[in-house]
Amino acid sequence: MTGDADLTRNAFLGGRFHLWQPRRGYRAGVDPLLLAASVPARAGQSVLELGCGAGAASLALAARVPGLELTGVELQHRYAGLARRNAAENGVELAVTEADLGALPPDLRQLRFDHVIANPPYFVAGAHSPARDGGRRVALGGETPLGDWIAVAARRLAPRGLLHMIQRAERLPEMLAGCAGRLGSVEILPLCARQGDAPGLVILRARKDGRGQFRMHAAVAMHDAGAGLPQGKDYTARIAAVLRDGAPIGWPG
Amino acid sequence: MTGDADLTRNAFLGGRFHLWQPRRGYRAGVDPLLLAASVPARAGQSVLELGCGAGAASLALAARVPGLELTGVELQHRYAGLARRNAAENGVELAVTEADLGALPPDLRQLRFDHVIANPPYFVAGAHSPARDGGRRVALGGETPLGDWIAVAARRLAPRGLLHMIQRAERLPEMLAGCAGRLGSVEILPLCARQGDAPGLVILRARKDGRGQFRMHAAVAMHDAGAGLPQGKDYTARIAAVLRDGAPIGWPG
Repeated sequence: MTGDADLTRNAFLGGRFHLWQPRRGYRAGVDPLLLAASVPARAGQSVLELGCGAGAASLALAARVPGLELTGVELQHRYAGLARRNAAENGVELAVTEADLGALPPDLRQLRFDHVIANPPYFVAGAHSPARDGGRRVALGGETPLGDWIAVAARRLAPRGLLHMIQRAERLPEMLAGCAGRLGSVEILPLCARQGDAPGLVILRARKDGRGQFRMHAAVAMHDAGAGLPQGKDYTARIAAVLRDGAPIGWPG
Repeated sequence: MTGDADLTRNAFLGGRFHLWQPRRGYRAGVDPLLLAASVPARAGQSVLELGCGAGAASLALAARVPGLELTGVELQHRYAGLARRNAAENGVELAVTEADLGALPPDLRQLRFDHVIANPPYFVAGAHSPARDGGRRVALGGETPLGDWIAVAARRLAPRGLLHMIQRAERLPEMLAGCAGRLGSVEILPLCARQGDAPGLVILRARKDGRGQFRMHAAVAMHDAGAGLPQGKDYTARIAAVLRDGAPIGWPG
């Protein structure tokens, strides 16, 4: 762990929580907030976040839904420590386990969760130029295939439990292949920069023991077209409500 | 083959070709036209249509691109005969083979094609209430899994050849699983009724030996929102150009 001089502390969800993060390395953007906003968790339910980093998604979910039992798994020591500190400073109970997804400790392997959430690394390791920072490298281009993330999630989900995962749209085939035979009632919510753009991200929802047909929803636009506003100020009303007011993202029924 | 009293003859693509079809049973709508409009075929190239029905997609492609070598495979005797008749009456050379996809005759199995196109049945046999008409039943709910359609297409494609397939969006996972390990550079073009609706159909493009990443394009709307026009009169300009003027559908670059 490095000193606070290497960290920044930023407000998220309109100040509903704050996050210490490394000044350099992987830093949470809006994606963990969108992930958290997609989860229909209710008070009293249990949530496992795979690869929780500094805790952004879990803390965002806690800010919206009080009374959750939150557990995070994080491979990197530095981020696991930050997640514990961030949870404590925001008054959230988040049990953080430092472990590789492929080798969860026995106590975790005996638990089942109502929800599993994950914002896995966006690039396949080796398929892009390596980041200089080690933590950022692991966070951006993990060694663990997406199918393994989904397999671990499926094993940890309670019957009828839900997985939510946010990921680059180009990895949709991997995500769907990972769900096949493990999770059902798969839905995807594509996210595009502006109406009419190709989706850059998708949020995947899948249910343990689900038998519903695959559903692809209409893409949600992040930014208003041609508003001429600076970046970060031109969010659509729907996304602004998610990022500033902690609103749920609103899956189609 | 039944008499002409059981058939209708309709104009497609603004009268660019006409199609005899059974009055009852599976009848081509706009989907084969959208499929044909998605194929970047050039004069002199060879095209194989799997499950060609009465020939709508192949004839639509021929109307847009002269000088193609067209081959169709159709399981049902009645539709194979109609496809031959429709091709002849429209002055198109279309070699129609009556065969099951899983048992193509040896002469076809020795050929490789620049393009394969298919508009497979939209429902899995047994998963819906059976249609009264036998031909319609096979056309709407075929016995052949989508993965088998794609496997046959992959075997018949020349190196770098392209498959185009139109199908219900809910069967996207099956389509992607069918492509895995057989075809690459997969792209999907979702089609929705109106801007902001969930896509009901997708057009899949995949390349033999392709190594490009999966791409999901922005959805194409079929109808203008709230135009208040009767069905069939409210197509968006892009779709009207496809259906009336034989324009290509225009894949994003």
